[in-house]
Amino acid sequence: MIKNINIRTKSRNEFVDITSELQTLIDEAGIKGGICLVYVPHTTAGVTINEGADPSVVKDIQNTLSKLVPREGHYLHSEGNSDAHVKATLAGSSQSIIIDGGKLLLGTWQSVFFCEFDGPRHRRVTVKIVSD
Amino acid sequence: MIKNINIRTKSRNEFVDITSELQTLIDEAGIKGGICLVYVPHTTAGVTINEGADPSVVKDIQNTLSKLVPREGHYLHSEGNSDAHVKATLAGSSQSIIIDGGKLLLGTWQSVFFCEFDGPRHRRVTVKIVSD
Amino acid sequence: MIKNINIRTKSRNEFVDITSELQTLIDEAGIKGGICLVYVPHTTAGVTINEGADPSVVKDIQNTLSKLVPREGHYLHSEGNSDAHVKATLAGSSQSIIIDGGKLLLGTWQSVFFCEFDGPRHRRVTVKIVSD
Repeated sequence: MIKNINIRTKSRNEFVDITSELQTLIDEAGIKGGICLVYVPHTTAGVTINEGADPSVVKDIQNTLSKLVPREGHYLHSEGNSDAHVKATLAGSSQSIIIDGGKLLLGTWQSVFFCEFDGPRHRRVTVKIVSD
Repeated sequence: MIKNINIRTKSRNEFVDITSELQTLIDEAGIKGGICLVYVPHTTAGVTINEGADPSVVKDIQNTLSKLVPREGHYLHSEGNSDAHVKATLAGSSQSIIIDGGKLLLGTWQSVFFCEFDGPRHRRVTVKIVSD
Repeated sequence: MIKNINIRTKSRNEFVDITSELQTLIDEAGIKGGICLVYVPHTTAGVTINEGADPSVVKDIQNTLSKLVPREGHYLHSEGNSDAHVKATLAGSSQSIIIDGGKLLLGTWQSVFFCEFDGPRHRRVTVKIVSD
């Protein structure tokens, strides 16, 4: 089963919590056990799992990445978004999450975040749910 | 099949080799071919695959991450562990490893490491073994 | 189904586009839907997904990683390639890609790159194709 989640980001750097959208897809599929593969088909965006309770945490992650990989620099790529490509590689293009008892088996503080590094844009997350 | 590995870390930053525990779970399950999904349900810890022969290698990785993402900084999150959250995103929350002939198909020098970034703590690694 | 792709790198840092080799393996296996797990069994190399159209992009990623993790530094590991080990952890050892309609479900600009961080060397990428 492959489904898409459509996202409209509003800033250049923005982490969007997609945990509830993922859980809805699993509920709709009626799958009790398996693996949820969350895949980002973009080269200036990624996906990560981190704390969702305090929004300061993802802000700190964004700020730290921007400090490590500044927007301006001696980049060769002429589109002015090389920083976003580097961040995409650092965050990663996919996350694999266990499904157990019909639920994403996330830790207490974990949420799944789409990571926008070159917004605002219309984006897509592709989700494959593999049943046991 | 889902199993947990319990870990007690002793330092703030510490990489714990869990390769033999993973192999034991595969042996106990009697699975010959498939995929082993190693998942960390924490937001200040991660999992990576790197050299296990010389313990200096993971020390160098820890030291480099701490240099890139210092403990003290202009962080918004008030718990004093924003660095650990950033490192968790850089290392990643999961690793997928091929099982072949009943063994983890690791390279000669590869070991699987639980990455503690905010210890000492009691931690858990969740493992799902998917048989072919 | 497990297959290997053999790679001969020519520089210390080099990203090798393996997208067409992966697609060939899927074609040969005749698999229409599933997951392609791309695994690097080395500790000084990794695999990432990023832009394949403009070769400047992966050059910028390599240069940025080398700036963040310099070859020379206060490293403990005596083989002189600690930087490569750190980069391997940052890039990651595997990528999971959805297969749909017999094709890798990559985004328009995405290619899959083997990341050499300590070449030139003979390298191997192990690929497991899991059919639905």
